[in-house]
Amino acid sequence: MSILKRIESPADLRKLSPEQFPRLCEEIREQIVSVISNVGGHLASNLGVVELTVALHYVLHTPDDLIVWDTSNQTYAHKLLTGRQEQFPTIRQFEGLSGFCKREESRYDTFDAGHAGTGVSAATGFVEAREQRQQSHKVVCVVGDGALTAGLTLEGLQHAGAFQKDMVVILNDNQMSISQNVGAISAYLNRLITGEFCTRIQKETNQILGLVPHIGEPVKKIANRAQELAKGLVLPGLLFEELGFRYVGPIDGHKFAHLLPTLQNVLTLNGPTLLHVVTKKGLGYEPAMKNPVWFHASAPFDVKTGAPKQRAKCPSYSSVAIETLLRLAKDDPRIVAITAAMCEGTGLTAFKDAFPDRLYDVGIAEQHAVTFAAGMAAQGMRPVIPIYSTFLQRAYDQVIHDVATQNLPVTFCIDRGGLVAEDGATHHGAFDLAYLRHIPNMVVMAPADENELQHMVKSCISCNRPVAVRYPRGASLGVDMDPVPEVLPLGKGVLLREGTDIALVAVGVMVHKAVEAAERLEQEGISAAVMNARFVKPLDGELLGDVARHVKCLLTIEESSVMGGFGSAVLEWLSEEEMMHVPTKCVGLPDRFIEQGPQELLREHYSLTADGIYQHAKRLFAQVSVPTVLT
Amino acid sequence: MSILKRIESPADLRKLSPEQFPRLCEEIREQIVSVISNVGGHLASNLGVVELTVALHYVLHTPDDLIVWDTSNQTYAHKLLTGRQEQFPTIRQFEGLSGFCKREESRYDTFDAGHAGTGVSAATGFVEAREQRQQSHKVVCVVGDGALTAGLTLEGLQHAGAFQKDMVVILNDNQMSISQNVGAISAYLNRLITGEFCTRIQKETNQILGLVPHIGEPVKKIANRAQELAKGLVLPGLLFEELGFRYVGPIDGHKFAHLLPTLQNVLTLNGPTLLHVVTKKGLGYEPAMKNPVWFHASAPFDVKTGAPKQRAKCPSYSSVAIETLLRLAKDDPRIVAITAAMCEGTGLTAFKDAFPDRLYDVGIAEQHAVTFAAGMAAQGMRPVIPIYSTFLQRAYDQVIHDVATQNLPVTFCIDRGGLVAEDGATHHGAFDLAYLRHIPNMVVMAPADENELQHMVKSCISCNRPVAVRYPRGASLGVDMDPVPEVLPLGKGVLLREGTDIALVAVGVMVHKAVEAAERLEQEGISAAVMNARFVKPLDGELLGDVARHVKCLLTIEESSVMGGFGSAVLEWLSEEEMMHVPTKCVGLPDRFIEQGPQELLREHYSLTADGIYQHAKRLFAQVSVPTVLT
Repeated sequence: MSILKRIESPADLRKLSPEQFPRLCEEIREQIVSVISNVGGHLASNLGVVELTVALHYVLHTPDDLIVWDTSNQTYAHKLLTGRQEQFPTIRQFEGLSGFCKREESRYDTFDAGHAGTGVSAATGFVEAREQRQQSHKVVCVVGDGALTAGLTLEGLQHAGAFQKDMVVILNDNQMSISQNVGAISAYLNRLITGEFCTRIQKETNQILGLVPHIGEPVKKIANRAQELAKGLVLPGLLFEELGFRYVGPIDGHKFAHLLPTLQNVLTLNGPTLLHVVTKKGLGYEPAMKNPVWFHASAPFDVKTGAPKQRAKCPSYSSVAIETLLRLAKDDPRIVAITAAMCEGTGLTAFKDAFPDRLYDVGIAEQHAVTFAAGMAAQGMRPVIPIYSTFLQRAYDQVIHDVATQNLPVTFCIDRGGLVAEDGATHHGAFDLAYLRHIPNMVVMAPADENELQHMVKSCISCNRPVAVRYPRGASLGVDMDPVPEVLPLGKGVLLREGTDIALVAVGVMVHKAVEAAERLEQEGISAAVMNARFVKPLDGELLGDVARHVKCLLTIEESSVMGGFGSAVLEWLSEEEMMHVPTKCVGLPDRFIEQGPQELLREHYSLTADGIYQHAKRLFAQVSVPTVLT
Repeated sequence: MSILKRIESPADLRKLSPEQFPRLCEEIREQIVSVISNVGGHLASNLGVVELTVALHYVLHTPDDLIVWDTSNQTYAHKLLTGRQEQFPTIRQFEGLSGFCKREESRYDTFDAGHAGTGVSAATGFVEAREQRQQSHKVVCVVGDGALTAGLTLEGLQHAGAFQKDMVVILNDNQMSISQNVGAISAYLNRLITGEFCTRIQKETNQILGLVPHIGEPVKKIANRAQELAKGLVLPGLLFEELGFRYVGPIDGHKFAHLLPTLQNVLTLNGPTLLHVVTKKGLGYEPAMKNPVWFHASAPFDVKTGAPKQRAKCPSYSSVAIETLLRLAKDDPRIVAITAAMCEGTGLTAFKDAFPDRLYDVGIAEQHAVTFAAGMAAQGMRPVIPIYSTFLQRAYDQVIHDVATQNLPVTFCIDRGGLVAEDGATHHGAFDLAYLRHIPNMVVMAPADENELQHMVKSCISCNRPVAVRYPRGASLGVDMDPVPEVLPLGKGVLLREGTDIALVAVGVMVHKAVEAAERLEQEGISAAVMNARFVKPLDGELLGDVARHVKCLLTIEESSVMGGFGSAVLEWLSEEEMMHVPTKCVGLPDRFIEQGPQELLREHYSLTADGIYQHAKRLFAQVSVPTVLT
């Protein structure tokens, strides 16, 4: 009989004997592989933390003791052990379990997360709340080594290290964030694990000693200290010790004989402790161990081979954007690409292969990616940052303060704008048009299809100022591609269809759907113009005015938050130009966090389909067609 | 004859003999104190870096070599040495020199900054651009110790440490950011300077050794390493060495005999080097040394006594907000206050004095401040974050991802919303209404005066969800205060005046000016209603509808970016409610970065005065009053 099935809550787990844990872990892994092969999800990271999850719920008294999972895409085992086995097959599906922690879902989920690096900060919040309320539960935060590049994590560690309250941070070190890890702390962890250290320091000590000529008191101290250094000590975890943490580790994160007693012991310590646990991404499933990058967040796959079940027929928008970039980079040595640990997700691998020296992966550090780009741009380069819409939120201030105030030519290739599907509320790119549009100097565009995308990428590089092109997740439409990317006229839209009753003013992937809707409206005798705005900023006021003057009403359509978004920009323009007598309605995402679900299902749900547009247009036209004498 | 006057550019400086530098520094200090006592500014930090600035321009070949000044409010000496002596008295004034670096102003200013922590990232951008372009100039970044709490700085250090290109980061360590410094790295630097170290580690080494029971290979290594540690070595700069930097220091930042040869030497090294320079804030001006916090960014003062020349007659909005918070905190133990190194600026000192254990200063770490608050709120507390509008931009993602998605009761007291005056483009609070309004679950309000502010602070604590109250910099209006702060009805505005021709729909400090304008309009026979919206979100649609139905046109008024802001919200509502036939215009800040200048002057400049509103209203009403037959 299955051990897992007997566990309704961690209390049941705590009744088991640790000898049963290896079998339990096998069952958990089987369950995860079986479900995720059907629905897709974060496989590799979840397979890596099975033992750690079992050990944590065994030694802690959850839910009274609090576990904070950073990023929280590694919580499938946690979900299986905390009363959610039955719903587990619904994970990441519409109305199913979330693929991340959700406080609404379970009292074992203490803090919602989806972006990396929030765990330590949230956990210090838990700790200080505990102190304020004079409680005594344990607080444990599990954070991946990838999240150590995030400034937020380092801010949190500094706080915890300075305030010296009891907490345990478990560094789950699999030497990867999503792709191969980068950055100095990652290199440092690697030295900790391998025992290599200090060689560089040793070599240079004498050199440094020669540098400071006036041997005053402080300099003498340096000399003494440096000589000690030269002895070549290997000091574990001093980085964390210096930040105020007690460092324990590294220990093997798959051996209960190490995990259980060490966890039990560190939980008795006062002050902040960092326990360094080494795990293997994908453990227990061969294909995931071999290709942890693909299995970071995989599509449904065949369990036997690990091969994806379906392949898209058309290239993704991501790949079209990067292929264009690559083409342009061949003739323009100023072009470099910068990514925040998203080389694969954004399609940059092709660029990396062609120009390894012109690709900068800065780790999960969006803020730095943007300010670093601003620095390069200020020195004559043309940096391009392919980044998911939701992750660029982290660098909102850097876009304003470092790029836009100086009007620097940094290009943002905003991937996954709009609905992203199964990752849900924390991952939809719902706010980008709204948070970029009000930034002075910015140019913001969104292509109707992949052909327009290639022209827009070209236009970004040419326009010599801060500029964003925003495109959706997933496969493109399969339209014909022009042979060469061309520069589009800045701030100019296109009238795709003339009409006299209503104008559908659409942007991005809504454009072709608007055309479909217009065709359907025409069949019913409603003459609908369609404008492809192309630019959210600057808006093509001239064309918009022309269009608005010839119709009875306007419908704006965007896959983005209506509040502050493209529709809002159109309204502002109408107000500015004294054209508010043209009744206008805005279709887009509503003022709420959007749930998880397949893109097409969500688009239907929010009327972002040809039919949805048609319905909206028909309703609006009916309203404005009521003879005014009757109102 | 003055040495300073003979220096038209750093080339002239390089012709001097270093023996002349102390006198030069005296002259620079005199000039700075004299000008800043008249115009106000960042005195203490500037007085602290005079020798460092002279030394840098002496050993480097600026402007070919590049100096990046983090935050860049410490660049007064830099400006005096780089051809800007004549304009120096105009610093921080309307149309005068900027108080920060400005690339537009001088080719010696390499990167604009105003927010802390961007320097290392920008400098790594400079370095990588140099490598791409196969140039060979030096890149030096000067960063204060306060900026080391910023995640962005730590992200930048990680990049530079990993990429191992030639650069020098000068850590200007005055043991302060703005107020007394906090955080683990600050404590670490203090240990470096004082030579104290390792005592805690020594005590606990044996304890740690007892914790890990299974002495496998990695554990044996730990034991060996820990025993070495126990010898009590004092290791300088290992934190930075571990991040991939060569560490040199600490050296005295006021002694040319140390500064010049050390700088010359570190500039010859390969790879990234961190030079730790210890300076004294306010050096050379007694009052600034005694009170570096007040002199961080001081108002004009009397040179002899250091006393401010003017004192405001009315309490500041900041102090009213914090006094209210203090009052509420006495009865509500859930209330804690969190600041990102802005205890004094936001008025929190009073709170700190009353509740030292309920005030968290996390250093310049806005991201952490917000996620930390979310953690506390998730555990039953009612955290309040008083923060400048422009600095909250840093935590935009944390507001969305950590606070709003979970609908957590975190209160943002957004100080310096709107025009902030002399600090200019990087400091105006122009975007807050636009960047907060589109976030689901958020409540956003802005008080008309200090009495409404106290009620709004109370309302924030009561409304049990993410909420922001936004108020301006400076003295309040001096209105009568109600004895007790009351909870305002959520999402309800107030009709202050009825009218039939035009409605002035105002929010925040524009409300009283709108009333004045309405009175003037009435004298000319134009009947103007005035609505105090109070809430930017949720908007009081009911009242807005009532008002709109009784007038011929609407004017919205806000001290905030019109694009995406309050006016935009009103337009969205009109569209949604099919009331676009009411012609509406939006008054607010235009789509550009706003220059520096006195608040009142800027308000005049942007029509954000009673007269400006009157003019706008009159023009709008004239337009809509033209009989339609004539158009």
